[in-house]
Amino acid sequence: MRISEKNTPEQSGGLKQRVISALLYCSGEMQQLHSHMQDKPYLLQLVEWCLRGISRVILLNNPLSGAVILAALLLESPWQALLGTLGLLASTFTAIILGQDCEEVSSGLHGFNGMLVALLMGVFSSAGDWYWWLLLPACLGGAATTFLSSSLAPIVDHWDLPVSVFPFNTVIVLYLACTGTSNPYFPNYPAHPPRAPESTNQTQLHVPQLLQGVVLGVGQIFACGTLGPSLLILGAVFIFSPILAINALLGSVMSTMAGLSMSVQHRFLYSGLSGFNGALGCMVVGAFFIFSWRTLLLSVASALLSAYTDIALSNLLGAVGLPASSWAATLIGTLVLLLTGKNLKEHRIPTGKVTSPEMNLRSHKEWSATNDYTTTTDA
Amino acid sequence: MRISEKNTPEQSGGLKQRVISALLYCSGEMQQLHSHMQDKPYLLQLVEWCLRGISRVILLNNPLSGAVILAALLLESPWQALLGTLGLLASTFTAIILGQDCEEVSSGLHGFNGMLVALLMGVFSSAGDWYWWLLLPACLGGAATTFLSSSLAPIVDHWDLPVSVFPFNTVIVLYLACTGTSNPYFPNYPAHPPRAPESTNQTQLHVPQLLQGVVLGVGQIFACGTLGPSLLILGAVFIFSPILAINALLGSVMSTMAGLSMSVQHRFLYSGLSGFNGALGCMVVGAFFIFSWRTLLLSVASALLSAYTDIALSNLLGAVGLPASSWAATLIGTLVLLLTGKNLKEHRIPTGKVTSPEMNLRSHKEWSATNDYTTTTDA
Amino acid sequence: MRISEKNTPEQSGGLKQRVISALLYCSGEMQQLHSHMQDKPYLLQLVEWCLRGISRVILLNNPLSGAVILAALLLESPWQALLGTLGLLASTFTAIILGQDCEEVSSGLHGFNGMLVALLMGVFSSAGDWYWWLLLPACLGGAATTFLSSSLAPIVDHWDLPVSVFPFNTVIVLYLACTGTSNPYFPNYPAHPPRAPESTNQTQLHVPQLLQGVVLGVGQIFACGTLGPSLLILGAVFIFSPILAINALLGSVMSTMAGLSMSVQHRFLYSGLSGFNGALGCMVVGAFFIFSWRTLLLSVASALLSAYTDIALSNLLGAVGLPASSWAATLIGTLVLLLTGKNLKEHRIPTGKVTSPEMNLRSHKEWSATNDYTTTTDA
Repeated sequence: MRISEKNTPEQSGGLKQRVISALLYCSGEMQQLHSHMQDKPYLLQLVEWCLRGISRVILLNNPLSGAVILAALLLESPWQALLGTLGLLASTFTAIILGQDCEEVSSGLHGFNGMLVALLMGVFSSAGDWYWWLLLPACLGGAATTFLSSSLAPIVDHWDLPVSVFPFNTVIVLYLACTGTSNPYFPNYPAHPPRAPESTNQTQLHVPQLLQGVVLGVGQIFACGTLGPSLLILGAVFIFSPILAINALLGSVMSTMAGLSMSVQHRFLYSGLSGFNGALGCMVVGAFFIFSWRTLLLSVASALLSAYTDIALSNLLGAVGLPASSWAATLIGTLVLLLTGKNLKEHRIPTGKVTSPEMNLRSHKEWSATNDYTTTTDA
Repeated sequence: MRISEKNTPEQSGGLKQRVISALLYCSGEMQQLHSHMQDKPYLLQLVEWCLRGISRVILLNNPLSGAVILAALLLESPWQALLGTLGLLASTFTAIILGQDCEEVSSGLHGFNGMLVALLMGVFSSAGDWYWWLLLPACLGGAATTFLSSSLAPIVDHWDLPVSVFPFNTVIVLYLACTGTSNPYFPNYPAHPPRAPESTNQTQLHVPQLLQGVVLGVGQIFACGTLGPSLLILGAVFIFSPILAINALLGSVMSTMAGLSMSVQHRFLYSGLSGFNGALGCMVVGAFFIFSWRTLLLSVASALLSAYTDIALSNLLGAVGLPASSWAATLIGTLVLLLTGKNLKEHRIPTGKVTSPEMNLRSHKEWSATNDYTTTTDA
Repeated sequence: MRISEKNTPEQSGGLKQRVISALLYCSGEMQQLHSHMQDKPYLLQLVEWCLRGISRVILLNNPLSGAVILAALLLESPWQALLGTLGLLASTFTAIILGQDCEEVSSGLHGFNGMLVALLMGVFSSAGDWYWWLLLPACLGGAATTFLSSSLAPIVDHWDLPVSVFPFNTVIVLYLACTGTSNPYFPNYPAHPPRAPESTNQTQLHVPQLLQGVVLGVGQIFACGTLGPSLLILGAVFIFSPILAINALLGSVMSTMAGLSMSVQHRFLYSGLSGFNGALGCMVVGAFFIFSWRTLLLSVASALLSAYTDIALSNLLGAVGLPASSWAATLIGTLVLLLTGKNLKEHRIPTGKVTSPEMNLRSHKEWSATNDYTTTTDA
């Protein structure tokens, strides 16, 4: 509603105005669609919840973004897209059965962890595509994440933090530690540490591949290692919020540079595996803080910290053949939200009030304009 | 008092009624005995506290159960029973010296961690039975658990959680990491991961041994690996609460099935080592939730999660030669108590009000009957 | 002010009285200097803050102690002293930029973690002294510790705990895991576990070296492995508080005995590496509890627990080539501050009111004298 007000001067623009209207309708949280769906059949509502759940993985809340990401996953690998959808459904249904808050379920908050777990099970499985037994752990793992988020909620709530992807990270590490590489039913590929082995001489850096790796860094949040799907995922972020899309790319760049400074193996840089933790760490700041030059510096710092922490954790966990998945970004992101310094704290948005960065910025400006005494915040 | 009211119709039954009276007197928390002991000599009171402490290991609170378990331990190995008793005394006395809450000490809450630590020190020691130097770490370890529970209490209290066996698990892992396998004074056996080595071919499953392993799973909570003592321990649980005994067996069955699904080494299944974390995880739900078909499902889920987490942690810690002891059940049990879904939360009993499941059920029913608006809980 | 009142009887003592006055002026927290500096130039104030920050590492709060310790570090290695100062400045400036509480910054609370990180980076670097690239991670690491303390503060505040050296321990472990031993830019020495290898026969113990190791244990808090600087550091502690100096030595003795009982390698005992966690663990009790025979026992227990935990963690982390730095003392110290037993809790000083042990003792006595009902505390 409020978005369309902005367009009143263009009301006579005809087609152009209609296109802009449609674009604005699709951007942000799409609250209009959400209210519109309230009286639709249950199955249609469930589809909206699940699409929002898919977009939640990458800090969005927009069913259209979710649909674009699902398309990207189908393009990357239909089998993994199936697994992810199954995990998403399993965790959403578990949340409904447990009686979790209805508003949370309908905004997709109980689906994204399950989706990621199922997706990563498929990525690490060495049994090949269409290995149907894998549907079993995908369902169980998805359900387990809902248990975990339900349990972690009262603890993190106490400091106004989101549960974030802690459940996913915990469940996937436990699953991989449980099954291992030689399990007769669910064998996995081992994870390798990014640290270059002592004997090898690193070949020269290939700059175009490095640049591609930056884009792939955004895709690797969904374990996508090819360019097309990664660009689609970046587009999905752009639909929700251009600011977040810039954050994602900026984070991936900083993270790749951190990887270069630690001379990680080149294939980590080229595949985007070096970039995705930094991208996530940067996006957390973009999503939970009012955009300003101060928070931009903070997002760079968060990206660098996430990237270095990821290298450290990957080296440590790689020693026992486990991946660090997104532990680094999750931990650093959580710590960043806890920062107490008064120069940053005033830019922090309470967890329950977070919408898209553009909307946050707008409501902050309106609020600042009416409250004179808050003008000092930008001083 | 209230238990005997139940028997008024049978008052004329003579011998039969007397036996039932005696049985009912011995079941549950034996509060009558507790009040009866208040004015007895200190040493006699201490015996009651310690016996309750022994039973606390397996979530009971009944001195008779404690005595039966002590008998089972003596039957299994007198040396280990001695060590366990010493650890129990050390931690109870430390609690008294530190000035812990008197009510807590007298209900055995400051003894069970110390007992388990001393018991496990004996089990892992490779110096043989009656190696008297081991009394030293047994005492110190027992005292250390009391320090730890005293420190953890204000943290877990905040979310109405019990300290549980976190102190035991922490101290035993630190002790084994400290001493290791080649220590000249306190050598230990290394712990092996349950994951089957890649080269070996698993032989065929022996079903009777598997069934025995389910019962041994209950005994392994006290590190008992033989059938007689395990049955005695199961009997001790039955004395306190038949519901908990069913939970223990159910958990052990689920846990063994989880072990089968991950194809762990057969000796883990046969010895009950696969079962005990599931049994504990299942019993936590039985003890802290009102019994209903919903919580029965939850207890199955808790047993499965505990079992899989145990395999994962055992594989991880086994890589450095350490056992996962009961970390899995303790962590999952704590998370289950934190669940926020409204369908489960209404069945959760506040930590301070937990008695035996049968009593919980009865007081819940009485309470439901008087409060009309709570009838929705079983809808 | 109050300290000088004590000297009124000696007012006619001339030179002797002046010396005592000067000594008393320099001991304790030197609040007079702090108030005196308020209207001095910013740069001079910054020097005071940083010197206090140096002394904070070892639980002091005295700029003179800080200066003595800086002298000791310069004596040990000018390069490492430079690195430490840089880390100190980096973390202090980050705190100012983040807008942390001014009072905290001026009392050095945001400098000591950064200093330790930079110092240890220098110690572990295998690239030799004056390797200028190391200034980069030293600055970044210092800044990272400030982020971490700012984030951890709201969590630990909840239980009235100090942030302590958790940020240092986290950052240094992540840095070493990130770079490793074969990094082309920032190579490090690997850390070795204290556990003696199975093959070696321990030679006979050399008692004078063992005694020297006890003193070096105090120096090892600043990674000083030679006698002169260690004695200077001990002197710096004595300036702030003789009680703490005794605690430091007592802790180092207990810790060395714990090392002997676990038969760690002799070079750990001789170099003071066995002693420093115990010294710190013992000093925490000295600093945060009113001095009495009860808290003296507690400080011995804390030293022993810290020492054994340090051996366990060093063995575990040593398996992946990482040091346990002061994790053990930090964890045990934090747990000791959480103790709930009423016999100890009444001796605990609220975190915000901690000054030097002598002052704590004096204000406690004054307070006890006026409040009759508190006389039971020493009963």
